[in-house]
Amino acid sequence: MALELSAIEGLPEVGRGDDLASLIAERAQLEDGDVVVIAQKAVSKAEGRVRSLSEVTPGERAPELAAELGKDPAVVELILAESRSVVRAEQGVLIVETNSGWICANAGIDASNVVGADAVVLLPADPDASARRIRGGLRKAAGVAPAVVISDSFGRPWRLGQTDVAIGCAGLLPLHDWRGRADRDGRALAATVIAVADQLAAAADLTRDKTSGSPVVRIRGAAQLVSEEDGPGAAALQRPAGEDLFR
Amino acid sequence: MALELSAIEGLPEVGRGDDLASLIAERAQLEDGDVVVIAQKAVSKAEGRVRSLSEVTPGERAPELAAELGKDPAVVELILAESRSVVRAEQGVLIVETNSGWICANAGIDASNVVGADAVVLLPADPDASARRIRGGLRKAAGVAPAVVISDSFGRPWRLGQTDVAIGCAGLLPLHDWRGRADRDGRALAATVIAVADQLAAAADLTRDKTSGSPVVRIRGAAQLVSEEDGPGAAALQRPAGEDLFR
Repeated sequence: MALELSAIEGLPEVGRGDDLASLIAERAQLEDGDVVVIAQKAVSKAEGRVRSLSEVTPGERAPELAAELGKDPAVVELILAESRSVVRAEQGVLIVETNSGWICANAGIDASNVVGADAVVLLPADPDASARRIRGGLRKAAGVAPAVVISDSFGRPWRLGQTDVAIGCAGLLPLHDWRGRADRDGRALAATVIAVADQLAAAADLTRDKTSGSPVVRIRGAAQLVSEEDGPGAAALQRPAGEDLFR
Repeated sequence: MALELSAIEGLPEVGRGDDLASLIAERAQLEDGDVVVIAQKAVSKAEGRVRSLSEVTPGERAPELAAELGKDPAVVELILAESRSVVRAEQGVLIVETNSGWICANAGIDASNVVGADAVVLLPADPDASARRIRGGLRKAAGVAPAVVISDSFGRPWRLGQTDVAIGCAGLLPLHDWRGRADRDGRALAATVIAVADQLAAAADLTRDKTSGSPVVRIRGAAQLVSEEDGPGAAALQRPAGEDLFR
């Protein structure tokens, strides 16, 4: 098997209201069976999920938590507003469960690569819905329906550095289940459910140059993972709290 | 930027003492700047890291822990022998820190894809040393020195499914540090240290068919990540315990 990944060149800086699907379709020479991985920030900007810190009024809890963690109270206010619960708040790190169910630092809010020194970008409000909408747009604009993955860079327990993971997807089963299949000696494969959506996101990030702004990557050669229906979305990757030993 | 990944076809079943570097060099048409990702199991088998469960005598702690978790006492004995400490033992799950410093389920011991129903495969004793040795062998056999990554499939907190990560590497800086670089608006990039070794491992796994046994993947187009010197190895990805909120 072989896989080819290319960063899509020539995308303009994305702003509120931009039709991301058309911008991609014009440049990506898409075929059926392709996977399009889009960095979260481009999706969020197109959806207007940008906030000015000077317009945020910290509520009751944010100033105290901000002081404990050495963070900006306005940023902490936004993080709390975007979150269901706080998982850890220690050592200057704020790990939350976002309103969409993702566990990550700072609710995925990041100040880099945004126009305006005062501005921060939130995660898309419903990244799976964003992925379905962009897929629909690509179908209309390009006449093909690649899978769409929306990715973000998350840190991990135990391991240094960030890797890109999927926070939204459409047209892809995010988990590939090899269980029950036999290996080459006829033995059942043990415990092999693979988070292919996350692996596609990680692979795509390798082809990006973070300083030049190439938020979209086309992956060719993974057509076996692409489905006609939009499927359950990346939410299917969320481990239920009761089965999680690290909350 | 573009990336090409190909599974190396035609490798024989690997056994104890096999010269993995020569087997790869003969088939992979390697060039300078390539990255070779090798599934842990092939490396372990070549290194003789296979054990027969019937030859394992559980010590004091293993039978009790095995009963609690619903596991085979012989397997638990091997897991404990391969580990520095137990991170969690609950809900049938045994998460440990291995003797090489990796935090994962069952010390990476897995019974699938091994010849002999009684046999299990341990992780390589020192996966970074394995990667350096294989890289040296490739240099000798193929006259080029690709980066070598040894990968395994690990589960993660919070997210379902496994993804491949690097447990050993040579010729690659496992962490790519974008900090201090400016983004396209001239702002410093925030918190962007990327675990490229893990992303290469994840990408490679997408090109493998787990039932057919294609443990080696060649990645072309990531030469900017490949270094002349072997570098610090994947151990540089291990988060120091004192900076980890999830032990």
